[in-house]
Amino acid sequence: MPDSSVADSTIARLRNVPTATAKQVLRGLGVDRTFLFGLRALTSDRRVAGKARTLRFLPLREDVKPPAQGVNRRLIDTLERDEFLVIDAAGNMEGAVLGDMLAARAHARGAAGVVADGVIRDVEGIRDIGLAVWARGTHPDANSRNLLAWEVDVTVGCGGTLVQPGDYIIADADGAVVVPPQHAAALLSKAEEMALEDEFSQRLLHDGAAIDDAYPLPQSRRAEFEKFKSIKDAQR
Amino acid sequence: MPDSSVADSTIARLRNVPTATAKQVLRGLGVDRTFLFGLRALTSDRRVAGKARTLRFLPLREDVKPPAQGVNRRLIDTLERDEFLVIDAAGNMEGAVLGDMLAARAHARGAAGVVADGVIRDVEGIRDIGLAVWARGTHPDANSRNLLAWEVDVTVGCGGTLVQPGDYIIADADGAVVVPPQHAAALLSKAEEMALEDEFSQRLLHDGAAIDDAYPLPQSRRAEFEKFKSIKDAQR
Amino acid sequence: MPDSSVADSTIARLRNVPTATAKQVLRGLGVDRTFLFGLRALTSDRRVAGKARTLRFLPLREDVKPPAQGVNRRLIDTLERDEFLVIDAAGNMEGAVLGDMLAARAHARGAAGVVADGVIRDVEGIRDIGLAVWARGTHPDANSRNLLAWEVDVTVGCGGTLVQPGDYIIADADGAVVVPPQHAAALLSKAEEMALEDEFSQRLLHDGAAIDDAYPLPQSRRAEFEKFKSIKDAQR
Amino acid sequence: MPDSSVADSTIARLRNVPTATAKQVLRGLGVDRTFLFGLRALTSDRRVAGKARTLRFLPLREDVKPPAQGVNRRLIDTLERDEFLVIDAAGNMEGAVLGDMLAARAHARGAAGVVADGVIRDVEGIRDIGLAVWARGTHPDANSRNLLAWEVDVTVGCGGTLVQPGDYIIADADGAVVVPPQHAAALLSKAEEMALEDEFSQRLLHDGAAIDDAYPLPQSRRAEFEKFKSIKDAQR
Amino acid sequence: MPDSSVADSTIARLRNVPTATAKQVLRGLGVDRTFLFGLRALTSDRRVAGKARTLRFLPLREDVKPPAQGVNRRLIDTLERDEFLVIDAAGNMEGAVLGDMLAARAHARGAAGVVADGVIRDVEGIRDIGLAVWARGTHPDANSRNLLAWEVDVTVGCGGTLVQPGDYIIADADGAVVVPPQHAAALLSKAEEMALEDEFSQRLLHDGAAIDDAYPLPQSRRAEFEKFKSIKDAQR
Amino acid sequence: MPDSSVADSTIARLRNVPTATAKQVLRGLGVDRTFLFGLRALTSDRRVAGKARTLRFLPLREDVKPPAQGVNRRLIDTLERDEFLVIDAAGNMEGAVLGDMLAARAHARGAAGVVADGVIRDVEGIRDIGLAVWARGTHPDANSRNLLAWEVDVTVGCGGTLVQPGDYIIADADGAVVVPPQHAAALLSKAEEMALEDEFSQRLLHDGAAIDDAYPLPQSRRAEFEKFKSIKDAQR
Repeated sequence: MPDSSVADSTIARLRNVPTATAKQVLRGLGVDRTFLFGLRALTSDRRVAGKARTLRFLPLREDVKPPAQGVNRRLIDTLERDEFLVIDAAGNMEGAVLGDMLAARAHARGAAGVVADGVIRDVEGIRDIGLAVWARGTHPDANSRNLLAWEVDVTVGCGGTLVQPGDYIIADADGAVVVPPQHAAALLSKAEEMALEDEFSQRLLHDGAAIDDAYPLPQSRRAEFEKFKSIKDAQR
Repeated sequence: MPDSSVADSTIARLRNVPTATAKQVLRGLGVDRTFLFGLRALTSDRRVAGKARTLRFLPLREDVKPPAQGVNRRLIDTLERDEFLVIDAAGNMEGAVLGDMLAARAHARGAAGVVADGVIRDVEGIRDIGLAVWARGTHPDANSRNLLAWEVDVTVGCGGTLVQPGDYIIADADGAVVVPPQHAAALLSKAEEMALEDEFSQRLLHDGAAIDDAYPLPQSRRAEFEKFKSIKDAQR
Repeated sequence: MPDSSVADSTIARLRNVPTATAKQVLRGLGVDRTFLFGLRALTSDRRVAGKARTLRFLPLREDVKPPAQGVNRRLIDTLERDEFLVIDAAGNMEGAVLGDMLAARAHARGAAGVVADGVIRDVEGIRDIGLAVWARGTHPDANSRNLLAWEVDVTVGCGGTLVQPGDYIIADADGAVVVPPQHAAALLSKAEEMALEDEFSQRLLHDGAAIDDAYPLPQSRRAEFEKFKSIKDAQR
Repeated sequence: MPDSSVADSTIARLRNVPTATAKQVLRGLGVDRTFLFGLRALTSDRRVAGKARTLRFLPLREDVKPPAQGVNRRLIDTLERDEFLVIDAAGNMEGAVLGDMLAARAHARGAAGVVADGVIRDVEGIRDIGLAVWARGTHPDANSRNLLAWEVDVTVGCGGTLVQPGDYIIADADGAVVVPPQHAAALLSKAEEMALEDEFSQRLLHDGAAIDDAYPLPQSRRAEFEKFKSIKDAQR
Repeated sequence: MPDSSVADSTIARLRNVPTATAKQVLRGLGVDRTFLFGLRALTSDRRVAGKARTLRFLPLREDVKPPAQGVNRRLIDTLERDEFLVIDAAGNMEGAVLGDMLAARAHARGAAGVVADGVIRDVEGIRDIGLAVWARGTHPDANSRNLLAWEVDVTVGCGGTLVQPGDYIIADADGAVVVPPQHAAALLSKAEEMALEDEFSQRLLHDGAAIDDAYPLPQSRRAEFEKFKSIKDAQR
Repeated sequence: MPDSSVADSTIARLRNVPTATAKQVLRGLGVDRTFLFGLRALTSDRRVAGKARTLRFLPLREDVKPPAQGVNRRLIDTLERDEFLVIDAAGNMEGAVLGDMLAARAHARGAAGVVADGVIRDVEGIRDIGLAVWARGTHPDANSRNLLAWEVDVTVGCGGTLVQPGDYIIADADGAVVVPPQHAAALLSKAEEMALEDEFSQRLLHDGAAIDDAYPLPQSRRAEFEKFKSIKDAQR
């Protein structure tokens, strides 16, 4: 069984942060280019979070061999619990960068999920396995016809966004966002504060409050909110 | 609670008209350009219908202020029951024109649904709220980075189709269609007639009839249909 | 009721072959261009398989009449059990090539499914009928405004792939693949062998095996696999 | 040398009709779907006109042979003066449907031009030969890798528009338009009348007339126009 | 002849500012969203500059009349020298927003150029007239079939960028950029300084200097540059 | 002045090989994936050839610094005569990967040309400098806003094709093709043979030969061709 040393409380907490909140807070922290554009949830859109392990494919050329064979397999064999596989295939739509075998291994290793700037296959099998994947679409063919697994654990581009090994990834029904690790603490602190306020705002709106009277929470609602918060705190 | 004066029987009846029927009947009535192209059902594809309230975004430019601040919030605060929010963002994919807070308020006001020529965020939250939204896709960022809520209750373009305040909108799994109010009565009358015939045709086809013997309903089936109709009428 | 002469055991067995397996095996057999690119499962993504019947639409031009009227209706009226309707509309997005009436008739005839290089309407109705359709998207309008049903039972292009009457089609969550009939036996034989191996590999991976130790199945696992196989065979 | 029987005065006159005029007049005559969408002038955008000869490619599949070999070569060998080659490759971008050899032969036969719903190669060579081609773009590879020349002299789709053998084609800097032969006389008559009026309107606008005072030509300008016309007629 | 009061020296000077320089300097001044994305030079790519007059089209709907008829004609009739026509058709590709008649009138009025988020026709005629147009492409049909000229002299979106009446527009081979008038003086001052430096850097690079030794101009080159500048100044 | 050691006779000979010939011959040599898809000639489409030097951009993220600053400048400063700059920006359209300053330096160093999977600016300036560039389009903004020059002299993807430092690149009006160096000699030998035959075939076609009688050159024309060839050889 994979070592769980990577599985830290940061990831557990990030799993509660909607990508919408993360995107917005990171922008406030000065990091705006964090959304992985063009990927769709293909097997599940429940929220997952993890630490990036990266894999880069290059287009196959018949006369070229990659620096090492099977680096994608090696990477997945060494995934640790709560690592998030980030695949850069530069948007290639003609060969799957992931199928149900590697997905099964990734899942067995405890992978948090997969984001792929490319396409996948065996969607039904991957759904059964229970691995959450965001990608450009599906293609039933293996990548062996079109792509070369070139290198791993390097900085990559994915959905037009730069991802480095060790970055955090959050993905949900809105898509996937990269969280620079140095900003994770500030993000979590702000996001958790916002979560409670957002829940309170939702309650007010549900009960018929006007928008400005509920979101962002106005000064006039602060006292009410503090009471709500202390009840919430007591319930934990 | 919002006044229900807008909620008229027209809307209740339009809710039973498939967009496929509406599109086709309106064409017969001389209005062909009624389909909002390029939008997908993102939170539910159950059929909804309502009266258009319009909101127009323009691209943000750092030195430009909109004529009034927060017009999108004001519009949603004044939505009446069964109004349908129609958002024109000219297809911009880089900032959400709707999130779960405004969606919650729209739902609390009794909004019928939302069609947006742009993207939305908080998809999971909006699903929980129960608001049906058709849009171009998702982006976790707020629109404040890319778009300006410019004006409301004006004629807009949405999905390549012109929509005016007060038009009816029907949306379902096939997409969204605008219904000019002056044609609503004729549409309903024709559509309701077709609905019964279509149900009867479906039954015939299910039972093995050839297409020409079932749809459009041939003269030879009229007597049978009249019997079916009278039984149906009796059951109401 | 349609004659079941077409429903042969080949189709029953193809229904168990994932498109991913079929695509890969056919490539090994020298036929690479078999994936129908750009179509999505719109009503169900359960796997279906059948024998191709083809229908070709051409763009409507107001002064041109097709060689015969209603050939699409005639084709669907004569579908046999387990035939798969393959529609070539050259990617036209402006008028539906299938609605719930023809879908009902196709289903009543025992059609296996539909792949369409075009758009469909009445998606909800077709879901209710239970017919599986892969297409480019939806449009609520009938094709009568934009397309002419031109000819049937001819060689067509669909999703950038050539399909001939009598080819087999398999479609599932990964998309649709054409199977040349002369390769069906070899495909089935190879695919069924692979299915058992794949199931065994999945089990190994689930139990924590490294990728090279599980897939493709290494020599060192052969004995173990043979035991698994004989148990499986005994269970049948 | 090719027989010039096809080269009729209709074609000579159509060469003077801008596609913009043709498109608009044909619409007035009840034929609206005549523009070949998505093609660009690749070797010259001077206006050319001719009579359609059609060629249809289908996607290559390794196990399929076309009904006859080299039908594209046979077609081009039998082009007559002022025939216009219309190629349907359903928008395939991966293999050229025309290169400089077939272009040289087409030019030697007196071809008017080529419209191709696909890509071409040897652009520079074709420019040197002097053949005008409208297509989707360029690809240096021959079509032998991706496409099969399937049939000739049949009704095809090209740029989303139906073209039949014997239709007229006009192409210029605005794109290409198909002219149904039964409407050619009415088109020419109307277009030639418009040409003189348009020339007169241009002159008025150049001299500072307001738009309504020049185009469409108002009643108040009729006398002046008749004088202009009689001078023009005298000059011929 | 049009009054030349609008033709100010600002425009004359902007004509010398490459869009690349303008885009970059405006970003430095805090206005980043100024590039009109997706438009191509269709009749000439020489640099032009002018003051924006705006025109907004909405999609045609058969039952809707625009607030006033022919507002596009009225706008063009009242263009002043060096005004730049900015057309918002939300990217519609199916009907031309400009043809050679309105182009002739615009040119006669002294228009600087046209940017259109839509398509144009009569490209050859407009080239002959000498009006520079940036647009999405060409379509030979008039807009009367698909678009309604809705309003003029209002804030519009064009190429994903907001444009207000009175903004400056510069367009050249790189595309078109909007210049907020309040930033024009600062832009010109900075741009003209850069132009001389850029010319000097180009000379250094042409003569073999390394990039860091030439651009941006390093301190070590300042004295040399001042000499170059004084010679240039003397030559004026 | 740059050392000319790289400028070998191979490059001089490749300059005479059309990309169409190169693509086809390389396919015959077993290397099929050599076309750089999606790039257009922006400053000139005359044929150029050279040896690849590679540059890879990654998307900018505000918190990330590239491994070294200004690697694009360093690369261009060290270009040798007849080297071909190959830029991988993964298709990013929002910031130029090349402007007139780096282009001037590249040209002064003797660069053969540039292929860029991204956009460029200062098109007019680069045309004046005389550097031939194939790219996705233009954007007036510098890349500093959107991209990071990440690494040089590594294997990259460009237009969906793998390019390694030291590969040859040929580009002309049909686009750009990569030539693996180990296949250069075989390509040249075959291409030069084909060039003479192609010239002879063109002559035959021009003089009215049927296609099969001219291309590919039939046995019956061999003697005639040998005479043509000996005259050609004598003329050299």
